[in-house]
Amino acid sequence: MTSASPAPPVITFLSDYGHYDEFVGVCHGVIARRCPTARVIDLTHLVPSHDVRAGAILLRAALPYMPVGVHLAVVDPGVSAVGPHGRRAVALRTIEDGHVLVGPDNGLLMPAAERLAGVAEAVDIGESVERLQPVSRTFHGRDIFAPVAAALADGQPLAAVGEPLEPAQLRRMAIPTAHLGDGALTAHVLRSDTFGNLILNAANEQLLAVGAEVGDALSVAHAGTHHTAAYAATFADVTPGELLIYEDAQQMVSLAVNRGSAAKLLGADQDDELVIRPA
Amino acid sequence: MTSASPAPPVITFLSDYGHYDEFVGVCHGVIARRCPTARVIDLTHLVPSHDVRAGAILLRAALPYMPVGVHLAVVDPGVSAVGPHGRRAVALRTIEDGHVLVGPDNGLLMPAAERLAGVAEAVDIGESVERLQPVSRTFHGRDIFAPVAAALADGQPLAAVGEPLEPAQLRRMAIPTAHLGDGALTAHVLRSDTFGNLILNAANEQLLAVGAEVGDALSVAHAGTHHTAAYAATFADVTPGELLIYEDAQQMVSLAVNRGSAAKLLGADQDDELVIRPA
Amino acid sequence: MTSASPAPPVITFLSDYGHYDEFVGVCHGVIARRCPTARVIDLTHLVPSHDVRAGAILLRAALPYMPVGVHLAVVDPGVSAVGPHGRRAVALRTIEDGHVLVGPDNGLLMPAAERLAGVAEAVDIGESVERLQPVSRTFHGRDIFAPVAAALADGQPLAAVGEPLEPAQLRRMAIPTAHLGDGALTAHVLRSDTFGNLILNAANEQLLAVGAEVGDALSVAHAGTHHTAAYAATFADVTPGELLIYEDAQQMVSLAVNRGSAAKLLGADQDDELVIRPA
Repeated sequence: MTSASPAPPVITFLSDYGHYDEFVGVCHGVIARRCPTARVIDLTHLVPSHDVRAGAILLRAALPYMPVGVHLAVVDPGVSAVGPHGRRAVALRTIEDGHVLVGPDNGLLMPAAERLAGVAEAVDIGESVERLQPVSRTFHGRDIFAPVAAALADGQPLAAVGEPLEPAQLRRMAIPTAHLGDGALTAHVLRSDTFGNLILNAANEQLLAVGAEVGDALSVAHAGTHHTAAYAATFADVTPGELLIYEDAQQMVSLAVNRGSAAKLLGADQDDELVIRPA
Repeated sequence: MTSASPAPPVITFLSDYGHYDEFVGVCHGVIARRCPTARVIDLTHLVPSHDVRAGAILLRAALPYMPVGVHLAVVDPGVSAVGPHGRRAVALRTIEDGHVLVGPDNGLLMPAAERLAGVAEAVDIGESVERLQPVSRTFHGRDIFAPVAAALADGQPLAAVGEPLEPAQLRRMAIPTAHLGDGALTAHVLRSDTFGNLILNAANEQLLAVGAEVGDALSVAHAGTHHTAAYAATFADVTPGELLIYEDAQQMVSLAVNRGSAAKLLGADQDDELVIRPA
Repeated sequence: MTSASPAPPVITFLSDYGHYDEFVGVCHGVIARRCPTARVIDLTHLVPSHDVRAGAILLRAALPYMPVGVHLAVVDPGVSAVGPHGRRAVALRTIEDGHVLVGPDNGLLMPAAERLAGVAEAVDIGESVERLQPVSRTFHGRDIFAPVAAALADGQPLAAVGEPLEPAQLRRMAIPTAHLGDGALTAHVLRSDTFGNLILNAANEQLLAVGAEVGDALSVAHAGTHHTAAYAATFADVTPGELLIYEDAQQMVSLAVNRGSAAKLLGADQDDELVIRPA
């Protein structure tokens, strides 16, 4: 019976707006006015303020689990810059699956788009007919991104909401990559999650490539100090308080402390380099 | 195709319930039982606890961006008071656009209603047939406000959910107003947002009226200290760490620090008086 | 008019995932892919990390206010344990009202189920055909619980999403109970809410049974210290800063400080014993 109803269009929404102010709710309201049937899924609004890279990594991680739809992302420290230093506002369609991404052209959208085989089509939406006028200088989420996302969810094509833009002109984002050498894996902290787990930029297979096997003790060098971590299949394989390294839910490698915080134990922060090798 | 589905009724929801407890979710459940098709938009639930004025200012700021619908707002320090000191529970319809507001009669709803030309009709819902019985003494959001809001979203008229009440009997809220004099603008802090921007109670045109122009340096006197702020069009016009004053997303005046916190720099708090003049 | 639309299926969702990461949003996405018409109500995602009992108490408190539907709950410290120490993943249907609960078999679901007359039918969903493969070791919310909940909301019977399990095999949860004796009520702190109110495991009628009446002063002994609390009907019956004891919104007894925090005043924590008697 429920399958008789058509699936509503989906808009996912990620930002650094936080929950303290009305910003997120106002964007939901703007969406509901333009596309009343859209279902909005909040990915997270607690991206660290102005941290475009953290937002890009979160969006890339979440997108494979989302329905095909419109994905609105706003982490936008350059919102109020104009002229030669200004950033574009853009909407783009991915080659794989035809997801539509909407946000500032500051790199935020690109790691997610690249995971979906890149950009098939892009438009500059800074002067979109869908924008709310007058456009404020500081709240483009409300005035440009949300109404354009809603129009796209309502079925408008990209060409109707902006000016054509060569995909090659979109601003890319550099994210450090892990590498193998001297019998060790040199990796970096992408970010730490709410439990203090340190999410690294290395695939589990890279760890296997340095000769490590689940059950081994590994040496983890960070900022001049050395730690020993158990290469474990599960948290339960180590005692509470013990450091472990494991294949996380993204098939990547993470460091954790069973019922504790690896971020605190190591004192590690985003982009920190870790050198991991069999102990 | 998506436009074939009728627009679901919308209920917006603002409170000081926070996210730690199940209060917000329980109200959503109560709404879903009474009006299963209603879409609920959470404006914010992090209004500072019991701060009716902060809630009123947030509601007033957000409402112009919401679809026409029912707006549920609960910041209710007097929830459990009864008798002569008790506050009413009310629902009202605005003259402009016919928005329906539901909440305690403690001033919370009135700044928003006044922005929409005032109150056309009001009812006392304390004994509403829609309330959940037994009504608890401490959780009227669940027992009175949410079910009444859901009934109104489901199409019930005001007269069906409460007893008629003269709009003149509704409790107003005093919010300080800015004024011009001696070549200066005397304004007040309405609140600070999540970025530490100080939102003032002055319109941008009042700042222009003291002879200030974008690009000028302005003197900002607060609590015996003086600061210099750049009257800027955009954050990018000042260097990181610099104080600026600008027209915010509400066409009002705000103080900010580029990539910093004006609230911290000035040590300013709600209702603090600021005297602003050309430097 | 709105009543012409069928009620969408409802999934409520409680977890300790927090809002900082994308975990909650990813589960919403997984649900939307499997059952696009489902409406998801977030009960709370700020259950203290790994605190199964706090989650169980919150779920039990909230469920009576929810529509009949599917209730997804994930507080799962044993997620990655396998073999003899592993916990099952389960879905169950309650005897009363036919609510469906989905989550880990660690006691989390049982207090809520017992309030609804117990479990009519249960299945082990660890190897469900609905799970997302490969199943990660650490994020069963995404890979098992959310897709199974969505399938159930879409109308699948329990038997189609898991293997039959005797309800008697489900893991129970012990929650301390209050008792009367020596003219006193011995109660315990279940948890403290966001306002610092201490929610006790005693019904208001148990307090009446020791001879207390609203208006009395009561003695509250805790950790070797004694406090006096007013047995009040409402917060407004005591002066700001004063300790009161009252019948809360669940018909249970709570301790509060008018415009303050009882948790801070008493320095009380979960499971602490309180002995309450007429002063």
